[in-house]
Amino acid sequence: MHYAKPLAKLVSEFEKLPGIGPKSAQRLAFHILRINEDEARELANAVMDVKQYIKLCPVCFNYTDQPRCEICSDAKRDRSVLCVVSEPRDVVAMEKTNEFRGMYHVLGGVISPMDGIGPEMLKIRELLARMTDGEVKEIILATNPTIEGDTTAMYIAGLLKPLGVKVSRIAHGMPVGGDMDYADQATLIQALQWRREI
Amino acid sequence: MHYAKPLAKLVSEFEKLPGIGPKSAQRLAFHILRINEDEARELANAVMDVKQYIKLCPVCFNYTDQPRCEICSDAKRDRSVLCVVSEPRDVVAMEKTNEFRGMYHVLGGVISPMDGIGPEMLKIRELLARMTDGEVKEIILATNPTIEGDTTAMYIAGLLKPLGVKVSRIAHGMPVGGDMDYADQATLIQALQWRREI
Repeated sequence: MHYAKPLAKLVSEFEKLPGIGPKSAQRLAFHILRINEDEARELANAVMDVKQYIKLCPVCFNYTDQPRCEICSDAKRDRSVLCVVSEPRDVVAMEKTNEFRGMYHVLGGVISPMDGIGPEMLKIRELLARMTDGEVKEIILATNPTIEGDTTAMYIAGLLKPLGVKVSRIAHGMPVGGDMDYADQATLIQALQWRREI
Repeated sequence: MHYAKPLAKLVSEFEKLPGIGPKSAQRLAFHILRINEDEARELANAVMDVKQYIKLCPVCFNYTDQPRCEICSDAKRDRSVLCVVSEPRDVVAMEKTNEFRGMYHVLGGVISPMDGIGPEMLKIRELLARMTDGEVKEIILATNPTIEGDTTAMYIAGLLKPLGVKVSRIAHGMPVGGDMDYADQATLIQALQWRREI
């Protein structure tokens, strides 16, 4: 027992966070001791506020503090293209590109029999429901380029194809700035298979 | 603006913490969204509790939630040896060795003219006050082996020597398990200067 009790408790709370080991947890706790009480309260309140105010958008299942998320409420977005992603953080990644102006659909995971996650546990039924009015012309499947992400994309493609909607998958290949010499075998194989005539 | 407001606020609060970049801050915020409200409250309360309950021990200036810290209150500790450290985290590091059974004195920093920190801003006066009853026979100066840490140790040694107390400095040298080949020059020079006949 090297810490006073409230300090030990805070260290152990920080240790529960992903990517925070014992050493980082200690550094964070000592940081909290150094900052003033108002600054500490800002952090504590921010933690509680996300739990209280952030919900899932009933349309796309992204995080939002509004009845509908900012993207679903934005009249300027292109409602004919729908990008299907696994997690809310993937929406953030796509938005940061400033390249995509369509809508999103967040599945809330990927099909993973190993973890007991079947398609019925994802927002796939809700995705199909969004197809009924015929507004969506193209679906971009942007789940991760992993076995589970590919499986999920293939599964959804199988359900969508009969509806006559255009279905595409994000390209798999060499990351920009990557080094052929350091690329893993699986990536190189994908880069070959996805090659395009130039 | 890629996040809903309360989420953006939490990400920015996490980004203020030491060693947490934008990517880690986002991962932490999404983690808070996934855990349940009780778990989030545990974290938020732990942050506020350290601010409310943790004070400095009036004897050694280590962190404590008691009128005196656990070490200063422990009758089994050796009151004749006093280990002087810069920060409360250094007490934790020393205690983890299970090697030292004496008392501590936390300076609350090191002398650093560059940062405008003079000796009068450290708990040096309080250290000298602890010498008056003649109980302390040895002082171990365990500030960091840096220019500031060494300067602070030398300064304190100069004040203590006239009092007839034994003053020692922790050894500087090669870390256990270290590699001569990878050691920096300064460490090697110290390791040579601190060498001991065997």
